[in-house]
Amino acid sequence: MTLYQGPAFRVERRDGRDVVVHAPVAAVVALDHDDRLTLVHQHRVPVAASLLELPAGFIDAGESPIEAAQRELAEETGLHGGEWAEMATFFTSAGFTDERVHLFLATGLEPGAAAPTEDEELEVVRVPLTDVPALIDECRDAKTLIGLLLLSRYRHL
Amino acid sequence: MTLYQGPAFRVERRDGRDVVVHAPVAAVVALDHDDRLTLVHQHRVPVAASLLELPAGFIDAGESPIEAAQRELAEETGLHGGEWAEMATFFTSAGFTDERVHLFLATGLEPGAAAPTEDEELEVVRVPLTDVPALIDECRDAKTLIGLLLLSRYRHL
Repeated sequence: MTLYQGPAFRVERRDGRDVVVHAPVAAVVALDHDDRLTLVHQHRVPVAASLLELPAGFIDAGESPIEAAQRELAEETGLHGGEWAEMATFFTSAGFTDERVHLFLATGLEPGAAAPTEDEELEVVRVPLTDVPALIDECRDAKTLIGLLLLSRYRHL
Repeated sequence: MTLYQGPAFRVERRDGRDVVVHAPVAAVVALDHDDRLTLVHQHRVPVAASLLELPAGFIDAGESPIEAAQRELAEETGLHGGEWAEMATFFTSAGFTDERVHLFLATGLEPGAAAPTEDEELEVVRVPLTDVPALIDECRDAKTLIGLLLLSRYRHL
């Protein structure tokens, strides 16, 4: 039973619980040829704050997670090419939403021209890997914290 | 403007975006005297799956994050006492909800009798720290993945 239908998600009642039915998300730990990490800084209305996040976006219908990750990364930052691997797949908050994040590691990415959509006001930030430990301490976005911690684990940062 | 009001959260429109307004959550990386980690296995309706998670629950009105964490841990697992420290605070999915998780590390916890509320069907699981790397590979719950990765980082697991 649908309780609310909006442009970004709907609310359904399932087994007596309210569930936010949400599109899945693809997110990327993006490293370029110089081993610099690319993040995006953006204002988030729900939390009334600007957060430093992994490039990410919705997986469209008919699109695979990696296709969405590559498309979103190119749109937001211009980065493309490189080598891709799956890092993790997780639910953001399984008590009330089915939202799922597919997290990828991309290395050796090539620069290009970004083409953000109109509703995205993004500032692209490039940081050296030596900044990752400090970023972990400051990070307030769950998917980004997971990506930074997994990167740190793999690269012994 | 409230678009939908349910028992667990409400949906508001803010700056043209639909926002799920949700209570904050407290979660605990719980280690007992034997340095065993306590997790809870529970069925999650929104994702139609059973997940292995950190003990966690809503922060009630008038309650501090650490008070909620200690209350929820005792209710779900019986564990109490010990030494407590803040690990991290993060937003679960800042694009559509204000839900925030306050994550704590508790060590040297004492066993006791659990008292789960009626809507919680939990199985308490105790694992040695040597299992943490395998748990990280299998974990599908964001807050739990963050807690395990931070624990692993601090303890060099």
